[in-house]
Amino acid sequence: MAASKKDELIKKMASGELSLHKADEVADPNDAVEIRRMAVEKKTNTSLKNIGATEMDFASIKDKNAENVIGMITVPVGVVGPLKINGAFATGEVYVPMATTEGALIASVGRGIKALNMSGGATVRVIKDGMTRGPVFKFNSILEIEKFLEWLPKNFDRIKFTADKTTQHGRLERIVPYVTGNNVFLRFTYKTGDAMGMNMATVATEAGCSYIEENFKDAKLVAVSGNMCSDKKQSLINSIEGRGKTVVAEALIKEETLKGVFNTSAQAVNEVNFRKNWAGSARAGSSTQFNAHFANTVAAIFAATGQDPAQVVESSGGYTWSELRGRDLYLSVTLTSLEIGTVGGGTGLPTQKESLSIMNVHGSGSPPGSNATKFAEIIAAAVMAGELNLLAALSTRELGKAHQKLGRSKS
Amino acid sequence: MAASKKDELIKKMASGELSLHKADEVADPNDAVEIRRMAVEKKTNTSLKNIGATEMDFASIKDKNAENVIGMITVPVGVVGPLKINGAFATGEVYVPMATTEGALIASVGRGIKALNMSGGATVRVIKDGMTRGPVFKFNSILEIEKFLEWLPKNFDRIKFTADKTTQHGRLERIVPYVTGNNVFLRFTYKTGDAMGMNMATVATEAGCSYIEENFKDAKLVAVSGNMCSDKKQSLINSIEGRGKTVVAEALIKEETLKGVFNTSAQAVNEVNFRKNWAGSARAGSSTQFNAHFANTVAAIFAATGQDPAQVVESSGGYTWSELRGRDLYLSVTLTSLEIGTVGGGTGLPTQKESLSIMNVHGSGSPPGSNATKFAEIIAAAVMAGELNLLAALSTRELGKAHQKLGRSKS
Amino acid sequence: MAASKKDELIKKMASGELSLHKADEVADPNDAVEIRRMAVEKKTNTSLKNIGATEMDFASIKDKNAENVIGMITVPVGVVGPLKINGAFATGEVYVPMATTEGALIASVGRGIKALNMSGGATVRVIKDGMTRGPVFKFNSILEIEKFLEWLPKNFDRIKFTADKTTQHGRLERIVPYVTGNNVFLRFTYKTGDAMGMNMATVATEAGCSYIEENFKDAKLVAVSGNMCSDKKQSLINSIEGRGKTVVAEALIKEETLKGVFNTSAQAVNEVNFRKNWAGSARAGSSTQFNAHFANTVAAIFAATGQDPAQVVESSGGYTWSELRGRDLYLSVTLTSLEIGTVGGGTGLPTQKESLSIMNVHGSGSPPGSNATKFAEIIAAAVMAGELNLLAALSTRELGKAHQKLGRSKS
Amino acid sequence: MAASKKDELIKKMASGELSLHKADEVADPNDAVEIRRMAVEKKTNTSLKNIGATEMDFASIKDKNAENVIGMITVPVGVVGPLKINGAFATGEVYVPMATTEGALIASVGRGIKALNMSGGATVRVIKDGMTRGPVFKFNSILEIEKFLEWLPKNFDRIKFTADKTTQHGRLERIVPYVTGNNVFLRFTYKTGDAMGMNMATVATEAGCSYIEENFKDAKLVAVSGNMCSDKKQSLINSIEGRGKTVVAEALIKEETLKGVFNTSAQAVNEVNFRKNWAGSARAGSSTQFNAHFANTVAAIFAATGQDPAQVVESSGGYTWSELRGRDLYLSVTLTSLEIGTVGGGTGLPTQKESLSIMNVHGSGSPPGSNATKFAEIIAAAVMAGELNLLAALSTRELGKAHQKLGRSKS
Repeated sequence: MAASKKDELIKKMASGELSLHKADEVADPNDAVEIRRMAVEKKTNTSLKNIGATEMDFASIKDKNAENVIGMITVPVGVVGPLKINGAFATGEVYVPMATTEGALIASVGRGIKALNMSGGATVRVIKDGMTRGPVFKFNSILEIEKFLEWLPKNFDRIKFTADKTTQHGRLERIVPYVTGNNVFLRFTYKTGDAMGMNMATVATEAGCSYIEENFKDAKLVAVSGNMCSDKKQSLINSIEGRGKTVVAEALIKEETLKGVFNTSAQAVNEVNFRKNWAGSARAGSSTQFNAHFANTVAAIFAATGQDPAQVVESSGGYTWSELRGRDLYLSVTLTSLEIGTVGGGTGLPTQKESLSIMNVHGSGSPPGSNATKFAEIIAAAVMAGELNLLAALSTRELGKAHQKLGRSKS
Repeated sequence: MAASKKDELIKKMASGELSLHKADEVADPNDAVEIRRMAVEKKTNTSLKNIGATEMDFASIKDKNAENVIGMITVPVGVVGPLKINGAFATGEVYVPMATTEGALIASVGRGIKALNMSGGATVRVIKDGMTRGPVFKFNSILEIEKFLEWLPKNFDRIKFTADKTTQHGRLERIVPYVTGNNVFLRFTYKTGDAMGMNMATVATEAGCSYIEENFKDAKLVAVSGNMCSDKKQSLINSIEGRGKTVVAEALIKEETLKGVFNTSAQAVNEVNFRKNWAGSARAGSSTQFNAHFANTVAAIFAATGQDPAQVVESSGGYTWSELRGRDLYLSVTLTSLEIGTVGGGTGLPTQKESLSIMNVHGSGSPPGSNATKFAEIIAAAVMAGELNLLAALSTRELGKAHQKLGRSKS
Repeated sequence: MAASKKDELIKKMASGELSLHKADEVADPNDAVEIRRMAVEKKTNTSLKNIGATEMDFASIKDKNAENVIGMITVPVGVVGPLKINGAFATGEVYVPMATTEGALIASVGRGIKALNMSGGATVRVIKDGMTRGPVFKFNSILEIEKFLEWLPKNFDRIKFTADKTTQHGRLERIVPYVTGNNVFLRFTYKTGDAMGMNMATVATEAGCSYIEENFKDAKLVAVSGNMCSDKKQSLINSIEGRGKTVVAEALIKEETLKGVFNTSAQAVNEVNFRKNWAGSARAGSSTQFNAHFANTVAAIFAATGQDPAQVVESSGGYTWSELRGRDLYLSVTLTSLEIGTVGGGTGLPTQKESLSIMNVHGSGSPPGSNATKFAEIIAAAVMAGELNLLAALSTRELGKAHQKLGRSKS
Repeated sequence: MAASKKDELIKKMASGELSLHKADEVADPNDAVEIRRMAVEKKTNTSLKNIGATEMDFASIKDKNAENVIGMITVPVGVVGPLKINGAFATGEVYVPMATTEGALIASVGRGIKALNMSGGATVRVIKDGMTRGPVFKFNSILEIEKFLEWLPKNFDRIKFTADKTTQHGRLERIVPYVTGNNVFLRFTYKTGDAMGMNMATVATEAGCSYIEENFKDAKLVAVSGNMCSDKKQSLINSIEGRGKTVVAEALIKEETLKGVFNTSAQAVNEVNFRKNWAGSARAGSSTQFNAHFANTVAAIFAATGQDPAQVVESSGGYTWSELRGRDLYLSVTLTSLEIGTVGGGTGLPTQKESLSIMNVHGSGSPPGSNATKFAEIIAAAVMAGELNLLAALSTRELGKAHQKLGRSKS
């Protein structure tokens, strides 16, 4: 686009004549990004040169990952590892990328990994898998609901047929009804292969809901998401039933490792775990997160790999369990609702794709779903490393010190 | 560093002789990043050129934002606005940056803003503010705890003096004790100016705890964080008492706006809100999030501005309330625990700093705390825009369609 | 027993020589009661003549309903009704007995019934039914748990065979596993006919657990109740999955009834319902009870009919939903976990049996289970009456007045 | 009343001409009870002779404890003890009355007491005390709420003056506001002496609310109870802040006692406690009840002493904490929200009064409040006995056996 034309459009936008998203109609994706950025600079009297300093081809993002784009945010990414892991799909040694701006976090997981490796590594299994969408219907009366509860299982196959038609990889597994007054929430659960699957589940559920409305006259769809999903919200139903992957990682940490790496003991770590993660979370009413900081590790890996950061909310739900085995420590983490994919969403962006490739989990796996499962195993192992390190650090009172040492000035 | 020296270090690292973090001891920050990245490429047989394609000076990050760094992750950032806002600090029109890889999200908030603006904009107030840390102590007996509960308020001033000494900007406001058996959780609450304040609260609380241990002999600190904080975990105590900022935004959406922008009505939106956000969240046991998708908007603004993404967990807690006022819709969002800062953490990174500057909230405000408060007001208004748009879209059944239209292939 | 012998035993007991429960070994049940009561009178220098003023034959209670008995507590019982009800089993008009010492409660439900009757009565359906027991097992490793999760469904029939053998009326319906670290909770669900069924479920589950331990070597039973039941504790799993009966009652209350009986309007009642029962319960973290006072009505009917008062805890869980239908009010209550029986427990005691007979639900129904289902329908209808009255009373600000009028002196 | 007159009234009532509560207008209290009972017998074709077999003078109940009374329900009451207790008010040995129809419960607590006594008894303290009422107000806008939050503390003294005037014993201690959208919940907390205090709190709060409405024009009372109380509902706010009495009991159970009384060990009991009461309650989403069966003991003492059985719901909330001290077991129970009184409610009924007198806690204490505090200490100690026994029984797998032995036929 000619510079003069560009200038004209920037002026129009800055004056309000051209709205932000209209740039895409009058300019190609890369020009549109520049026009918007310069208009915003003008309006807000700022320089956004770092946001603009990118080689990204914005045509690859348009209509896919973001709108009204003005450039790129950059976030430091580090790696930890190699982490020894004994999963069903992830085996051997793996490096784990973590993107964060919070000092000490990567080092913290790294030290945990060191201790895990000395203990033979992490054993991990995904024990449940399914993406959910929970529409809400309203009915005229409980008498109609009574009939509907009979109708539903008899018509499951037809609803499934209708839903599955909308997607190549998604497969509806079951629908469970929950009644509150004249509202019926239906929790649709899907297998979604290597995709996180929220969007395919939404589209398929919309189709299923249409079938229901057309064939059960008193059922009126209120919303295709009725919060029984529960997407981007923590909930006990997610904890209890699982959403995405339910994963358990475990390790036996030797007395000498606890002493050597952390200068602590099994008993001290175990005590912190119960008084903090169980008594403390219970006392606080933190009803789905009996853990120390699953969220930190999950968020950093999500940021590195193009996962949805809003899903850190429920993906950080779960339990840290420990027990003394002689003078060693048996440790395990259970992530109830880890929502991840290796295709779709932000996984195809240039840097995110590279992060996934470090773990050899980018794209569709063979068999389908195996990449996402492997990725889940790696995350759970890394989460356990983060738990181990923090619990050990707390037991020796070095938390604040760690933050201070890693460059925090007197704040 | 000479290329040959670099090659040698890369080989050493790839062979396991040199661990990832040791690179910082033998090379300058920028070389260390390159060495690590190339070693990981070698070990994992990958190309990480996009992660490496950055002009970042890694010396500015070292010991501050990340460890074991290999480069930068890039995430698209878009802007929405201008958003009309009537806050105590944010007034007039503002553009809001959002970084995301999830298509449709930015457009969704943008459309909500359009409707809010037509309704006179968002009215917002921060009604509570304080960062917390909740250590856990153990005691020998309830008889000692009984004495401690008397001792504590009498010694608050001394504990405060000790804690406040560790920080320039933090001020301890109060300590509330919670007893479970022989565990006593103390919730320390601080004013932290424009910083999110978690680290200063940790350091100050460690000092406070030391004072307590030295002066009340039966009190034994188990962990400086006992999960009563609750940091990076959702909890009812955060909902009930607030953590970070508690913010309320509201607007009156006119009948014609609902019709014109969304082709819906106040009654339809209100119905979705109650059946989904209230009945649905209750049914799911989503006990701190009676909302549709606070997390989406919060996560995207956090990613753009260098906030801690793990704190999306509790920062997305809150309530969407609506009521019919004639044929118009009164809408409000209450974010109970919005944890943000305009200094510290990732706010100083090049692109994140620019995002904050778009809203004119980078750095320390005058008076101190005013930038963070203004930022909180803007986030709450944007969150309300996101809620309005999603509830309206659900009421007209266009959710899946929206995702499909924005470039999702048949997934 | 000779009076002198009795005196001797009383003295022995008062002196501590004879413990309370040993009386049953040396005296017949009625004498034992007297001996204990007189010994306690002596020791505590009290007169317990009212507790002793009973015609009860204590032989019928011994080894069945209570131990160390000294007499009977008497509680006033009133009746409300006739209540018009349209259930699957309860139809027509029914009187409902309520035992309580809290003034105004019975009158409150009575007034609600008046309004329900004017609206055609209550429509009620039990939509789910099953008693649960949730043992906890521990395993050595997640690898064993992985195998166990495959083993369990394959061996369900054998476990069921073993469990069902222990009971005439109980039938094991399903077992659902929930994993937390190396703990596996198994939720056994039973049909229990007209019995509440907790004891038969316990005995049957013990048998099932023994089968599991014997046939899956790594599974070690920790406790036959692992709190996933959840008995006598509120829990989201009870809300989500139901325990005992899940019942919904509904009615359409006419504008003129609301005006005539309560001097209120549909809108006023609806507003109280949402601001109190939904916003209020959410704000308080009352995560299983989005209602006003289910517990009051449930407790009073339980007390009258020999149900377990500790189960009021979860039996009072549920939702009060309302909506405006023109100027009328659609109201419904959903009790998620109503745990009741018409045989067993306290249902066979003289006065409790009579209370059940008032509703024609004493003993085993034909078909089995029909009496308990009918009883559940009646309770739900009465609970709705109590909700309607309280919400209406709150909407016109007469709560405190009601209590004051009904004989409360200035307290 | 003449028999013929009585017969006439019975017929009228049976025919529906005379409603149940109208009997009180045409007959004295005792005749009214008889008329109602006989009318119900006639209508339902039942015999209610046991309900009628009472010497109660119903004039003492009328307008005070129940309405539409037809007689008395009788419930067996047993005693356990003597229990050694070291409280602030309860010291020495005490017998505890429990009314129940559930076999094995009294024996269970009795055995627990035996073990506690061998360990030196229970040490108990009430650490918090206050009855609450939580009205909900609505406002036009958050701007008005902002002003109100400033206004409220400045006007506390006047509101307190108005509230306290309505009661002799109640004293308003504080009001805490909680905002959700345009709703403001105010949690009023009172000292209520020896009364449970719910009614005095309601009346006083109504007065306080009237003052607020009159003096802050935008505040509109929606309901004097907005569920933030939370009365007869479990809630995290009750757990976190306490309601009624917060009590902690503790004991050190010796290895030999655990072996001698229960044939178990500290380690076995501790393991059951953590896997069941902590992992299990967490897994089930039983967010306020990390205990085994507080509800059982609480309900039975409540039934014996005229407490409100609907308040078992929150009075059974709390935590069972244990730890190994060498080979002994440190055990404690924390009841967060024990709502009890020794005056008012059902405490003045003949048998209930006698139950209270057994513990020497009937009526007003000196100083005021001391009887209720003493009573709370006794309940907590008994609850701990019940926990100890059940955990020990589970650890040796004798739960079902216990029920079977105590007279349960094959059910």
